[in-house]
This record gives sequence, C-alpha cells and structure tokens, in this order.
Amino acid sequence: MERSSKAGEIMDALNAFMDEHIYPNEALYEQQLAQGADRFNVPPIMEELKARAREAGLWNLFLPHSEYGAGLTNAEYAPLAEVMGRVQFASEVFNCSAPDTGNMEVLDRYGTPEQKARWLQPLLDGKIRSSFCMTEPEVASSDATNITTSIDRDGDHYVINGRKWWITNAYHPNTKIYIVMGKTNPDAPRHRQQSQILVEPDTPGISLIRPLTAFGFYDEPKGQAEIVFDNVRVPASNLILGEGRGFEISQGRLGPGRIHHCMRIIGQCERMLEQTCRRLLSRTAFGEVLADQSLWQDRIANARTDINMLRQLVEHTAHLMDTVGNKQARSEISQIKVAAVRVGRSVADLAVQAHGAAGLCNDFGLGYAFTRMNMIRMGDGPEEVHNRTIARLELKKYSDPGASSAK
Amino acid sequence: MERSSKAGEIMDALNAFMDEHIYPNEALYEQQLAQGADRFNVPPIMEELKARAREAGLWNLFLPHSEYGAGLTNAEYAPLAEVMGRVQFASEVFNCSAPDTGNMEVLDRYGTPEQKARWLQPLLDGKIRSSFCMTEPEVASSDATNITTSIDRDGDHYVINGRKWWITNAYHPNTKIYIVMGKTNPDAPRHRQQSQILVEPDTPGISLIRPLTAFGFYDEPKGQAEIVFDNVRVPASNLILGEGRGFEISQGRLGPGRIHHCMRIIGQCERMLEQTCRRLLSRTAFGEVLADQSLWQDRIANARTDINMLRQLVEHTAHLMDTVGNKQARSEISQIKVAAVRVGRSVADLAVQAHGAAGLCNDFGLGYAFTRMNMIRMGDGPEEVHNRTIARLELKKYSDPGASSAK
Amino acid sequence: MERSSKAGEIMDALNAFMDEHIYPNEALYEQQLAQGADRFNVPPIMEELKARAREAGLWNLFLPHSEYGAGLTNAEYAPLAEVMGRVQFASEVFNCSAPDTGNMEVLDRYGTPEQKARWLQPLLDGKIRSSFCMTEPEVASSDATNITTSIDRDGDHYVINGRKWWITNAYHPNTKIYIVMGKTNPDAPRHRQQSQILVEPDTPGISLIRPLTAFGFYDEPKGQAEIVFDNVRVPASNLILGEGRGFEISQGRLGPGRIHHCMRIIGQCERMLEQTCRRLLSRTAFGEVLADQSLWQDRIANARTDINMLRQLVEHTAHLMDTVGNKQARSEISQIKVAAVRVGRSVADLAVQAHGAAGLCNDFGLGYAFTRMNMIRMGDGPEEVHNRTIARLELKKYSDPGASSAK
Amino acid sequence: MERSSKAGEIMDALNAFMDEHIYPNEALYEQQLAQGADRFNVPPIMEELKARAREAGLWNLFLPHSEYGAGLTNAEYAPLAEVMGRVQFASEVFNCSAPDTGNMEVLDRYGTPEQKARWLQPLLDGKIRSSFCMTEPEVASSDATNITTSIDRDGDHYVINGRKWWITNAYHPNTKIYIVMGKTNPDAPRHRQQSQILVEPDTPGISLIRPLTAFGFYDEPKGQAEIVFDNVRVPASNLILGEGRGFEISQGRLGPGRIHHCMRIIGQCERMLEQTCRRLLSRTAFGEVLADQSLWQDRIANARTDINMLRQLVEHTAHLMDTVGNKQARSEISQIKVAAVRVGRSVADLAVQAHGAAGLCNDFGLGYAFTRMNMIRMGDGPEEVHNRTIARLELKKYSDPGASSAK
Repeated sequence: MERSSKAGEIMDALNAFMDEHIYPNEALYEQQLAQGADRFNVPPIMEELKARAREAGLWNLFLPHSEYGAGLTNAEYAPLAEVMGRVQFASEVFNCSAPDTGNMEVLDRYGTPEQKARWLQPLLDGKIRSSFCMTEPEVASSDATNITTSIDRDGDHYVINGRKWWITNAYHPNTKIYIVMGKTNPDAPRHRQQSQILVEPDTPGISLIRPLTAFGFYDEPKGQAEIVFDNVRVPASNLILGEGRGFEISQGRLGPGRIHHCMRIIGQCERMLEQTCRRLLSRTAFGEVLADQSLWQDRIANARTDINMLRQLVEHTAHLMDTVGNKQARSEISQIKVAAVRVGRSVADLAVQAHGAAGLCNDFGLGYAFTRMNMIRMGDGPEEVHNRTIARLELKKYSDPGASSAK
Repeated sequence: MERSSKAGEIMDALNAFMDEHIYPNEALYEQQLAQGADRFNVPPIMEELKARAREAGLWNLFLPHSEYGAGLTNAEYAPLAEVMGRVQFASEVFNCSAPDTGNMEVLDRYGTPEQKARWLQPLLDGKIRSSFCMTEPEVASSDATNITTSIDRDGDHYVINGRKWWITNAYHPNTKIYIVMGKTNPDAPRHRQQSQILVEPDTPGISLIRPLTAFGFYDEPKGQAEIVFDNVRVPASNLILGEGRGFEISQGRLGPGRIHHCMRIIGQCERMLEQTCRRLLSRTAFGEVLADQSLWQDRIANARTDINMLRQLVEHTAHLMDTVGNKQARSEISQIKVAAVRVGRSVADLAVQAHGAAGLCNDFGLGYAFTRMNMIRMGDGPEEVHNRTIARLELKKYSDPGASSAK
Repeated sequence: MERSSKAGEIMDALNAFMDEHIYPNEALYEQQLAQGADRFNVPPIMEELKARAREAGLWNLFLPHSEYGAGLTNAEYAPLAEVMGRVQFASEVFNCSAPDTGNMEVLDRYGTPEQKARWLQPLLDGKIRSSFCMTEPEVASSDATNITTSIDRDGDHYVINGRKWWITNAYHPNTKIYIVMGKTNPDAPRHRQQSQILVEPDTPGISLIRPLTAFGFYDEPKGQAEIVFDNVRVPASNLILGEGRGFEISQGRLGPGRIHHCMRIIGQCERMLEQTCRRLLSRTAFGEVLADQSLWQDRIANARTDINMLRQLVEHTAHLMDTVGNKQARSEISQIKVAAVRVGRSVADLAVQAHGAAGLCNDFGLGYAFTRMNMIRMGDGPEEVHNRTIARLELKKYSDPGASSAK
Repeated sequence: MERSSKAGEIMDALNAFMDEHIYPNEALYEQQLAQGADRFNVPPIMEELKARAREAGLWNLFLPHSEYGAGLTNAEYAPLAEVMGRVQFASEVFNCSAPDTGNMEVLDRYGTPEQKARWLQPLLDGKIRSSFCMTEPEVASSDATNITTSIDRDGDHYVINGRKWWITNAYHPNTKIYIVMGKTNPDAPRHRQQSQILVEPDTPGISLIRPLTAFGFYDEPKGQAEIVFDNVRVPASNLILGEGRGFEISQGRLGPGRIHHCMRIIGQCERMLEQTCRRLLSRTAFGEVLADQSLWQDRIANARTDINMLRQLVEHTAHLMDTVGNKQARSEISQIKVAAVRVGRSVADLAVQAHGAAGLCNDFGLGYAFTRMNMIRMGDGPEEVHNRTIARLELKKYSDPGASSAK
C-alpha cells in the first residue's frame, strides 16, 4: 500500500507538530484540566493548540471525498490516526476526535443545506462539539434493534422520550448538538424502525442526570452522561435522511470510525510498549535488570508481535474499504474491533504490571489508558456481537445453496 | 476438614448479621460516604454497625491463639473471611480488616507491654486504625531487599528518612499509628538490614503528599497515600522486636493475612458470579436470553469451576498452616496469592462484560470490584515474585544433593 | 479429610509396590509391547505384575461398598488412583483400569446372578477384559440422546444394529464382553429410550472395522476400535436392569469413574512436572541453565499451582460423593472433568516444550502423554457438555420460582 | 502490495492445478502411501503429479532472483505457498518443499560450479531429495552455538563425528545429499565456529539409528531420522562457502524459508477452518445445530480474525524482505514464526474439537494436521528463542546510547 506523496507530507507535518507542540504540552494539559473550576472544562492550551494545528493545515484530516476534508483515503488517513492516538487529547487538537468525526460525516453525507449550515460548519471549524445518543440503560443495546427511545411525529415536530447513557461529550462545555437514535416506526420491519434526529442540548425536557464513571474516571473533559429525554420537542426538519433510515445512517458512519478507533488504539499501544521497555530497563529485582529477564522479554515480544499483526489487519481493512467498499469489508470491520480491544487490553495490562503500583495510578497515564481500553471494549459493539457477525459471514460461505462442495 | 461447633455457630451468627445488618445497609453506606464533607470520612453507619457487631460477639474473629481473639484456627476463620468479603466494607465492621489485622498480629506477637497498651488495645477496640508503610516509589519493592528508607539510631531515638506510597489507611480519619519498614543496618547481610518501627502520624517531618488513585478511584474512606518521612524522630522504644528483624516480623504476618485476602476475594467472586447470573437471566439479545447462550454458559461454568478450585486450595493452605506450619506451607501461601488474583480478575472481567456499560461504572459495584482485583494483584507481592518462590521450591526437590533419582 | 488407617496402609503398600515393581519395569513393558507378534498383545510382564499385585492385596481397590472390593470410600481411593496414574499401564496391574472398572461396577450393582457369575467374576479375577460401546461416528454423541444404535426385541432375543467407534479394549486379546448402549424404546421420553446390553465379541454380526489412531497412536495394547453391529442377536437375559434404563445406569457409573480418571491425570501431571524440572535443570541456552530463567520458572509455578488446585477440587468432589451423594455433587463431577483436562493439557504442553524435540517423540513418554490428555478431553463428554451442565445448575439458583432475591 | 501480472497468472494456474489434480488425488495419495511395501515409500501418484506440474510450468516457483527460478519476489511467492499449504503433500508436487527449497537456495547462492552440477541440478529437476542436519539430541539446539558435531580437517578431507536427530527426509527413498552443520573451528569466536558441509548418505560411517515419531506419526514418506556420524570422511571440496561461515549461510536461508512455512500454515489453517464450518453446520446437539451456538461462533470468529492478522503480517514481512532486506526485517521474521505457530495450533485445536473424536484420528487429516503444528513449533527455533530476539531488538531502541528520550 504505497502512500501518496500528499499523505507523506501530512505525516511529516503531523509528526513535527506532535514533537513541537503536543508531547511538550502533555503535562500542562493535565494540569490545567485538574485545576479547572468545574470538573468538565476546556484547558486553555487546547484552544491554543487547535489554532496552531489549523494554521499548520492539520485540520479535519479524517474527512474523505469531501469539499471540506483533506481528501485522504482511509488507508492514507489510518497512519495519521495512529500518531494522534499516542496522546489521549491529540485527536481533538486536529479536529479529528470522536464522536464529532462520525457526526460530521453523517451531516456531510446526509444533512440538508440548513442542517449543514447550522451544525456542520461550526463543527468543521472546531467551534462546537457534539454527542451521539444511542446506548440505553434498560436494554442490551449491543443488539441495536432493542433501542426503545421513541421519536413520535406531532405536527411539524417530533417528540422524543427515552433514557440514554454513556453519552460522550454531553458534559463538554462546547457541546451544542446531539444526534439521537430512536424509534419513529415501531411497527416497521426490524431494521426500518429507527431514525436519527438532531437535538440541541438546551431544548426543554432534556436532563443530564449524572456523570458516569468508568473505573472511577469521569473521562474529563468530555464526560459520559446519563440523559433523560422527557417530551423533548424538536422541529421535524431536524430528522436526518428520513424516517426509518437510522440503521442505514449508522452503517455509513461505522467503517471509517472503526479504522480511526483502531489506529488510535495502536498508537496508544506503541506508546505503552515504549513506556514498558523504558521502565523495565530502569528497574532491578533479585539482582537482575527486569529487561534482561526472559519472562519480561517474552511479554515484550508478544506485545510487539500482536501490535504489528493488528496494524497490518487494520491497514488492510482500510484498503479494502477504499477499494471494494464497506459492505464487502464487513467481516474485517468487525474483526479489527475485536482484535484491537484484545491487543489493547493486553498491552495495557503489560504496561501496568511493568510499572508496578505506578501503573495503577495515573503518573504515567496508565491508569486511564487501561480504563480506556476497557471502555472501548464496550463501545461500538461488544466482541460478542462482532464475533457473531464474523462467524455468520464465515459460515454463510458453506451453508448457502450455491456454496462450493468440500475441498 | 470438619468445622468445630464453635466455628459453626460463629458462621451462623455471621450470616445472620450479614442478612440483617450488612446487605440492607450497603446503599446507605455508599450514600453517606459520597456525601461526607471530606473525601475521606467515616460514614456514620459504620460506627453503628461496629457497635452492633461487637455486641453480637462478632469481633476480632481473625486473631488466633491469643487472649484477645476468637481462638479460631486459620482453617476455621477462612470461611468467615469469605462471607465478609461479599461486601467491600464488611470486614471493618467486625474489626477484621487489613492492614489493621496484620498490624494487630504483629503487636500481639512481638509488641512490648507498653506498645500493646498504647496501640494494640485501641486497635482491638476498633477505636483507631493503622497503616503499614513498606512500598517505595523509587525501587522495585517487590524485592523487599530494595527498600531504601533509612532508620538511623540517634541517642534514644531513631530518625527516619524516606518516601513511601500506596499506604492504605493513611487518609482514614481514625488512623493513629504506622508501622514503618526501613533499613537500620545497611551493612548487615541482606535479610538482616531491615527493621520495623512504630510511628505516629502527627510526628513532625511526616508529609502526606497526595492521595493516589487506582484507575480513577481514591479508595475512600481509607485512601492510598504517598508519604514523605523527612528526619522523623521517634523514641527508640518504638522499634519492634529489635534491629534487623524486619523480615522476620514480615514472615510472621504474611501467612494469615494471605488467607484472609484470598478468602475475601472468593467471597467477592461469589457475589459477582451471582450478579452475573441474575443479569444474564434478565437480558435478551438477538432473540435469545443471554443466560441461554452457550458462550455465556461456558463463561459461567468456568467461573464456577475456578472459584471452587481456588477455595479448596486456600482452605487446604489454611489447614497446612494450622498443622505443619507456615514455613512448610510456603509454596502454597504463594500459590494462593497468584491463583486468587488470576481467578478474581477473570471473574471481575466476566461480571463487567455481562453487565455491559453498567459494569464499567459503579451502579453494581463492579467498577470498583474490578479495580480492587487489580490493586490486590500488585499488593503483597506481584505474581512474578511468588511464582519465582514456587518454582525454586519445586526445582529444589530435584537439584538438592540428596534428591531422589528419576522416577 | 482425614484418611482412615486402612487407606493409609494401602497407600504405603501401593507406593512400595510402585517403587519395587512398576517403575523398574516401565522400559521392559514398552519393549515387550513393541516386540509383540501382533500390534495388540499383552506384554508378559503385565501378567507377572498382576499376579504380584493380587498377592500383595493390591487388587480391585476401586470397588466401594461391595463384598468384592477394598471397601474404600471415593475419597480414600482417590489418592491411590493418583499414584497409579504416574505410569500409563499401572492401573491395569491392580485391576483398576477403565473401562473395566466401570463395567464391573455396573455388573456389581445391576447384574443378575447369572450375569455376575459369567462376566463379573472373571473381570474381578483379571482373567478377562471388557469394552463399553457408546460413541457413534454418525452423530454428536456428546448429546447421548443422539445415539442411534437400535436394540430390538425379537422373541427371547434382542437384535442389535449400529456402528460404534472409539471402543477401548476392543482389540485387547483378553476382551470377552461388551456393554452396548442403544435404543430399545425409540418412542419413549428422551431419557427412557436407551438400554444397556451385554454382548460377547464373538457373536455373529460383529465386525471390527479398523483400529483407530489418536494422532498417530494405536493406543496399544487395548486399542480403539470401530465396530459394526449387523443384526447381532443376543439372549434377552443379557439386558441390564431393564428396557429404557440405560441413562440411569450411566449416571451411576459416571461419578466414581470420573474421580479415577481425574486422579490419574493428576498423577500423570506430577510425573510430567517432575520430568520438566529435571530436564530444565540439565539444559543450558544462551549461557543460563533453563531452570534459572524466569520464563520457565513462571511456567513451573503455574503448573504446580494448577495441579494443586485440581487435586483439592477432585478430592473435595470425592468427599461430596461420599457424603451428600452423586446427585448433589453433579456440578462438581462435571467441573473436575473440565478442570482436569485443562490442567492436564497445559502440563503436557509444558513438558513437551521443556523437552524440545524429545518431547514430541516418546523417549520420555511425552508424545503419548500429550496425546492421551487430548483423548481424555473427548472421552466422557467434551467440556462443552459439562460446562452446559455446570452453568445450568448455577443459573437455576436464581431462576427458580423460589430463588432468593438479590444479595 | 499490488501483485504483478506474472504472479497473478501463476496463481490462476496454480489454483486450476489444485482443483484439477491435487484435491481429487488426496485420497489416492494417502492410500498408496499406506499400501507401500515399506513404511517410507514414494506414492506413484506423486511422480505423476510432479511431471504434470513441471509441464504446466508450476515448478521451482520459490526460487527468487535466479536463473533457475520463476523470478518471483517473496511477496509474490507467499500467496502461492498458502495455496500449496492447503494439502500436506502439494508443495512437493511443485518442487517447492522443505528442506529441499532451503538447500537449493544455499547451493544456488554459495555452491561451487561442481557442487551445483552434482547436487543442485538434480534437486532442481526433482530427481533427488535432500536433508539438512542440524538439531542434536544432547544439547539445547535452540541455541545454535551449542551444536557439538565436529568437522575436522584431515588432509584433503573433513572427518565428521556427531549425532543428529529430527532429520527430515533422511528416510525418503530419493534423498541423495545432506547438508551437515558442525564445528570446524571450536576456538574461534562463537559465531565463527560452525561450518556447513555436503555429505552423501551412503558415505561410510553414517548410520540411520531409527525413525522418530511425533505424537505417534512417522511422518511418511519423508520421515524424521536419528543419525550417527562416526568418522565420516568427505572431500574438503564439499565444504560450503568456507570454514566458520555456517551461521552466515543459515542467516541467508532463514528468511524465505520462514515465509514459506508460515504461508503454508495459513493455507492449512484456512482448510481446517473450512472443515470446521462444514462440520458444525452438519451436527446437532441439545436441539441446536452446532454452527448456530454462540460458543462455536465465537471460536470461528476468533479463528478467522487470527488467520487474517497472521496473513497480513507474513505478507508484510515478505514485502519488507523484498524492499529493506532480511536484516532490517529480523524482528518480523521472528514474529511470524511465533505468531504462525500460535495461530496454527489454535486453529488445529478448534478443528479437532469441532470434529469430536473424528478430529483425533486422521479421517479428516486433523490428527496429523494437529501434530504437524506442534512439530513446526519445535522446528526452526522454538518461540522462546524468537521472542528473545524480538524483545532484544525492541529494548535496543531505548537502551542504546543514541536512543531518543522519553516521548
């Protein structure tokens, strides 16, 4: 997979920016975040860095085939996402952070001119942030057909009722728009019941119940909210694409977002493996430097091999998406989710263990990194769902009437 | 291993107490803890429950062979620890929580009459709490000979200098005494360099630098502190047992504490497995109740089997300690640490996954339970150290000059 | 679980016998077996050892609660089975080898006086051997209700038609009786359709199709046969217990046989761990004795811990069977199958790897030991079936109408 | 990695040949092999197929950059090796089977014109076969510096003394040449002590001690031999490249052979996964087709993901070898060995388990496939050695004086 010269230039610029502006400001970012008046605040350094990134032309790099984006293919963007993934907050600096990326793609692809003007443009400018409201506490949301939030037509409006949770960004001070998934057509066929609709956070009837913690973390500054929608009325023109097309929209956003997530995980794994090596080189137990002990070497080697295998599969999947399309790459798009979480959790575990008690707290960022890997496991479909998809596609090769005979 | 009738009666009383007083107050305890003025506070319900437990004769059950304790063997106490382990805060209610238990054992066994009067008695009465200061941030403390804190004799005093961290209880409002491990005799043979000394928290020169988080948890109300000892002077009479006997003291406290920890882990695992079953029975995905799916059944079965194997090994180890002694049971005492953490982490992982996103937060106590299992992994020696011990004892059977020939 | 003095004496005698007669003859046994005129032959040393064992009173030790046996409980017999398990052919020396043991138990418990005189007595005398014919190639026999062999009444006879495979002992020269499982009542409720019937190998219509190999082993001298029953007529009096009672009979034989199998696996694991330690102490790579390398120490420690946990669980299960009965111990009886195979395969894997290429061949008995562990995995129900049973029993605690509420 | 049109045409021809000639003759090959007069014989169908393959231009495809070969890069040859790997004997049909391939590469690169005329040409013509004699029973050969066979200069000859084992092809009737590794310069620096020398099997002093079995298999028709070299004299001109250059030669052959092995493993995994799916679709237990059960689906999905990750990594490694060279790809060349064995063993395990008892025997080729995966684990360096290499290369990034500071 040869990289175009444009992609190569962006990569060079990105690496230079990371070296010059991101790594040196990691500590400052954490410090400003911790010292903010509110739990959920925007560290001033973030806005400074965003301005610099935009100036450097490192902005909205994720958006393919669009008048707004860098025009990179998935395969070209993937290595950039890996680099950004090395620092937890870096993607946002380049306006490339989830769920804004997915929301922008949806608006870019399916939004009306009015919707684009009102919400896509400020998102592209990094002026506002956004949420995607899907998961519900009362049902196994891993089966998306279980979603129960209702979106009922009432004249020129839709009325929304339901409870959502784990809504990323909902506590972020800049969040100005939600995309909400719910049922407009409960009597339609299972995959035509759901719709997606745009909702502004200050609409009456919306209550942020509480910030959720993941293993104790509030995931600042974006936060994870539980939200109740109680007779929330929005104009009918806020509906995206049309009634019953919620699944269709989700399918479209799924693939690229998956690549981004997985490549960021790889970046984070590389960072943790580096930390692990440095730590093991610096510590001695029972008269032997830890890095010289075969047990630790075995673990380092497995981590290196796992990360490399994962990267190859993710980049191959990106290539498939670019060439044969998301639908043909369905199995791979599920595979990389499962594999990335497996590798990510395993490398995080190694890094924590290599750092001893220091790995549990956040002195090396590992407490959060470990937690993050476990959060990602749940997000975007648990492995049980993805493995079901992969297996069914595999079995179909042999169970279809036209399947070739044994070989 | 037949249980004595006394142990049986205590078990009945304990179960009744759990049913009547502990389970019904779990939510209240969490609520009071969250609402305390300070992060580290004692929920009022705790003191109420302690009074009731003492009244019910369920007090200091852990202390064997002593005028103060219930006179139970390790094998008899073990199942009680399991029951207490089902609720995070329950051990404290019965004055059976670490590190107080270990500290009380040390004082009971090695303390001078003055040391006992001043610190053992209030500990036995549940009036004060205590810390054990061993782990240091600057060295691989898993090899205890690495410990660098100095305890230097200066006339009638010892002067302590060093930095400790992950000091449980240090932020607990009731903590009035530390046992500190450090080097009095840096030039002695490796296992005769260390001593243990009693230090009161308000001694000049002690600074609590910061509360540490494990993943994102502050582990309230006890807390995990980083502490600096800067020329801290304590009377020479605070030394326990004598100079250079720190390792000897540690060996003594190790065995029983290990049993307690492991049995509590088992109790917690049982609770989590119960939660897992209930959850899976209540959720449906892709048209099938999760509890009916073979993948989840496989996981439940493995958890059940693992827990049962672990319990048998821990109870067997307690029995060995009671009959042939800690030294002969050295390998088993290490085995149960490794096995308990392995099973505990695996069951916590299952419970989290079964609860979906609800498993990450603390609505079912699982976010903390998962975190706790990872903390325990580090505490009390990581598996690398224990496995080294087990393997060396195993290999010694065949490498000693007198080892029998191949069979 | 205190051992009775009788059991202790037998253990001493058994260990002495192993030292004096079994270990010193291992090589001879293998040599005679390899040099036999036929693939399936009885090495002369086997008959010599059997005579000696019987003389020493080490005979039919497995048979509980019977006029014929040693009168040991399951818990008392278990450690003896472990010792026998250390050498592949040792159980047969003491007339304690499967499937004869299970077949003798069935005849002892359910046989008519005539059946006992004709087949039980020579089995008890070690004069003949026997097979149990259950598994079929055409169906998933792990679900025993799938079994399709028909056993049809025809006057004073039953006529058997079907195909069985993996029939242990069928090629053994001394095998004189089969117990065959099949359907007498295909229209009865699912667990009342099957019966067990006694069939002599020279009955017309029986064809031994071929000896099966496990990986590449023929499992000499007993062999694993594929057998066709083509209109095989046996007297109606050969039926055991009655029509439709096949499952009931199976249940009875299941528990004790499981204990035997699992304890033999433990004996074999101990032997392999010993071999592993000796090997690692004797080999050097990259300038360090393998036994001193932390990676190998980690593996040794895990093997030691796993074996110990398994032994405790199996002995506990034997104790449960002796005290509360097989039905109450159903979950544990399944647990030990799954756990024993898991540990057995893992220790075999370790031993093979520690021996390098020598582990693949049979110079240290490891090629067969590894194979054996994989055979046992299939036999007696695969883990999928046992885990299903364990999980369903676990879930039942919370799904029954009378289940206690959440705690 | 775009495939050249030449490579694409060869792939099409190879697939067509497999469909027309290989798959339809699998049973015949096994039957002829089993019916041969000797254990080690060449099934007649093999020579027929070889003639056809050569005729079809599908011959010596593995040999890169050479007047003799197809001129394919490693990346181009890799997918062909995968296809051949689907059938155990297929590589030989195309004169692409180990260890002949590695031996031919060595002779092609380092052989004298005389050596080439005498041994390379008949090997290229598929007229003879060959062995590579390295592993020794007495030392941990995984550390190649341990090799003790001596190769001593004596006038115009070298005299070889030593014992080798696991010598593939040594029992093959067509094997006419060995390459033997041993020490010519025991006092030189560690990596300059060894040499490689050509030895004809009928040279006096060579004894084939016995055929070795792997899990009971004799690995016919090639066989695995134990060989003693007792004062074996060969002309000095048989030495390859020069004294002390044995390691250098090994390095050269290592990379491409690794790619071939790993791709064949992938081919075999694909075949086993296909068999697994077909089997699970055809069997029912407890009222549900196995393929519909979530536990089996989870396993299928993991196998699919693992195979895909492995393929990407191996193809990427081939690409690295083609572009930056073997030395720069050292870590990856080790990674794919470890990863391929891990995946291969896991998929073989799945296939065996899915087939129940039929997986243990060879009715579906799985008994041997499983065994083969375990043999490959040992061959070509065990994972302990490769992981050591990988880890040391990884750690070197941070321990070298010039290593960049933490990031």
